[in-house]
Amino acid sequence: MKKADIIIKAENILTMSGNDDGHIVNGAVAIVGNKIGGVGKAEAILSEYSSDAVIDHGKSIIMPGLINTHTHAAMVYFRGMADDLPLKTWLEEHIWPAEGKWLGNDFVRDATELACLEMLQAGVTTFLDMYFFGDASAESVKKIGMRAVLGVGILDFPSVAAQNTDEYFEKAEVFIKRYEDDNIITPCIAPHAPYTCGPDTYRRAVDISEKYGIPIHTHLSETEWEVNEIISRYKMRPAEYIDSAGALNRRMIAAHCVWLDDKEIDLFAERGASVSHCPESNMKLASGSARVAKMIERGVNVTLGTDGAASNNDLDVLGEMQTASKLHKLLSGDPTVIDARRSVMMATAHAADALGMQDSLGRIKAGFRADLIVVDINKPHMTPMYDVYSHLVYSAKASDIQYVMVDGIPVIDNGQPVLVSGEEVIARANEWAERIRE
Amino acid sequence: MKKADIIIKAENILTMSGNDDGHIVNGAVAIVGNKIGGVGKAEAILSEYSSDAVIDHGKSIIMPGLINTHTHAAMVYFRGMADDLPLKTWLEEHIWPAEGKWLGNDFVRDATELACLEMLQAGVTTFLDMYFFGDASAESVKKIGMRAVLGVGILDFPSVAAQNTDEYFEKAEVFIKRYEDDNIITPCIAPHAPYTCGPDTYRRAVDISEKYGIPIHTHLSETEWEVNEIISRYKMRPAEYIDSAGALNRRMIAAHCVWLDDKEIDLFAERGASVSHCPESNMKLASGSARVAKMIERGVNVTLGTDGAASNNDLDVLGEMQTASKLHKLLSGDPTVIDARRSVMMATAHAADALGMQDSLGRIKAGFRADLIVVDINKPHMTPMYDVYSHLVYSAKASDIQYVMVDGIPVIDNGQPVLVSGEEVIARANEWAERIRE
Repeated sequence: MKKADIIIKAENILTMSGNDDGHIVNGAVAIVGNKIGGVGKAEAILSEYSSDAVIDHGKSIIMPGLINTHTHAAMVYFRGMADDLPLKTWLEEHIWPAEGKWLGNDFVRDATELACLEMLQAGVTTFLDMYFFGDASAESVKKIGMRAVLGVGILDFPSVAAQNTDEYFEKAEVFIKRYEDDNIITPCIAPHAPYTCGPDTYRRAVDISEKYGIPIHTHLSETEWEVNEIISRYKMRPAEYIDSAGALNRRMIAAHCVWLDDKEIDLFAERGASVSHCPESNMKLASGSARVAKMIERGVNVTLGTDGAASNNDLDVLGEMQTASKLHKLLSGDPTVIDARRSVMMATAHAADALGMQDSLGRIKAGFRADLIVVDINKPHMTPMYDVYSHLVYSAKASDIQYVMVDGIPVIDNGQPVLVSGEEVIARANEWAERIRE
Repeated sequence: MKKADIIIKAENILTMSGNDDGHIVNGAVAIVGNKIGGVGKAEAILSEYSSDAVIDHGKSIIMPGLINTHTHAAMVYFRGMADDLPLKTWLEEHIWPAEGKWLGNDFVRDATELACLEMLQAGVTTFLDMYFFGDASAESVKKIGMRAVLGVGILDFPSVAAQNTDEYFEKAEVFIKRYEDDNIITPCIAPHAPYTCGPDTYRRAVDISEKYGIPIHTHLSETEWEVNEIISRYKMRPAEYIDSAGALNRRMIAAHCVWLDDKEIDLFAERGASVSHCPESNMKLASGSARVAKMIERGVNVTLGTDGAASNNDLDVLGEMQTASKLHKLLSGDPTVIDARRSVMMATAHAADALGMQDSLGRIKAGFRADLIVVDINKPHMTPMYDVYSHLVYSAKASDIQYVMVDGIPVIDNGQPVLVSGEEVIARANEWAERIRE
């Protein structure tokens, strides 16, 4: 009999692994240290493993933690500060001035803590961030017990984070070295966008990504304005432009990709680059919508991101799953596209693949990290249940997440955080908001 | 000093009444019997009214109960039974056979109970239903403490509800007379759709609507197929067709209206008919999207519906508000359309106007029915708050509804039903689902 630290059981387990449906009825997962020891039918697992902690989640659904592949976590303190405005007004008159005034280690640490709490309570166990002051973000990620890929933002102009391109890269490399072998934080290099980063900057980012074997993250083709601007500057469309700098490769996760044409979509497929589709942010800013049905048809790996809470206004990946599945039926006129299981894959296994973590994350599988969530189905809006994937995508809400484990450690129990005080996190946010409001 | 049965206080009250913003900071509402006695600043209300029950909801938001202007409540028992399918397959191979097999008084009573519980917990205090076996629906609506406008479905072909058009109308009139003076149930006549009801049927429905002064409800222009079908049958588009039967009038609430052309939109505005926009159902079935920005620009009264849970898959009006505000920014390319306050109006005051209840519902105003909800903002995803309307539309979830009052009676407290047992409602639904699944 093998020893497990924790065994969790439930009527439904979705492994998101292998070629079958991946739905185990009356299953169990054995957790050994920070990894999954085994998963299968409850009777099989319980005859192979013993544990002092066997948790029975009854009728619920156990599944891999959700992965948010594009956000700016600390912007959560600007949630709802400016809405129903054109992107340019929103960014130039509201968000950039607020960032210029408030950004720094204290702000990023405290704001990231709130973002992590919101995400964990919504079943998001890993997020890919693009921001500044990454050490402050890392501190909060670890405190609350989450996992993150922290992208160090690079710009070709000065900001509160650095004075020039060289300084951005120097700081990035210090950060990357610090977290190179970290178990929880994966560093990432994040040139901001084609209109803010020249070809040399993308090339340097690629070199660093290769040197350390880490993901590279950028905004790409978010607005029609950007497409026109890049064509006028470089005589190429945005995806062709970053490809010309070598940045469209297997390590690339490009956020938005709203305006990719057919050739650019094929280029993504050929290069093995991934898309972080952010439907709700793109809708709210009226930027347009990525052609996800087409991308999938052409073999592009598509994942889901919330973007920052200043443009969404939440960090709820379940919500993005539902929006993606519904939106692309509407846009393509075909109710069979992005079916429910596809949306779940985009938010779990396919997201892990995008981050280069295909052998450790996004699936419930022996040897993988023990990042998993439990979804309560014992609620009126979750009753009755005929199909578990349909339920997750079309009926479940963030508030149905009852239990979350990251790296083998329970971090949300009965919907509430285990390692921090939710009241204190909210109180700290409200204190900051008082000052920001003035 | 006047006597109030209950006084409820909170930092934020949205009255949705009058020409100003309608946001009272530190306000209170005095409830006298089943009506609102007064609303205003807390100190003013507390100096005018005394009560043995003064409930302080702290930082929360008090607002009118949400109104769902199109659903088929009892279909909630078919939630998630068939998804990611074309409308025709979904309807003809899954939904109609299931309805044919299961529909009856017991099914409708039990299923409506589950739907009402889901809606009440999501802050929906009134719904406009189109279905059959209305007495069974009414029984559950009253038991749980909700308010409803129950539309008796009329078809020109036999179903489990009646054998022919005459019988549908006879049963409808019996139902209407029974609830004519009811305080909670408003009867409504509901010819199903242009492709299932001939011109005589619409004319008879209009006569009944006028005779009893009740709303008339229909599906209209949901799919492109319907438009082509009606043109080929009557040489008119669907809105022109029902107008030719006199049915496009102030009492009409037409669901979907996806394919209205400019002339039909203007016809709606001229006749004073209302639209029940069901964005999520239309997206999920790939039916298309109503041109809501245009409708509002032309002066049409637009409200929000969830449609039945078999095609949505929930009954969550807050979710429709968020989807409507985001979707029409995307479709129009203009991030300023359907701003947050507009979405709240669509789900409250404008919905009451559509139902002919402009003098009693949808606003917090002296003399109006005491139907109101309290939204908890003390959650990570609701922190910080800069704008109350933005928060409701872009951040709030059904699970943030902490307290619901209908007709002066508290029916949800701390998120849980007061008058029924949620566990029993869920257990009953699961028993039915066992049989349906076989």
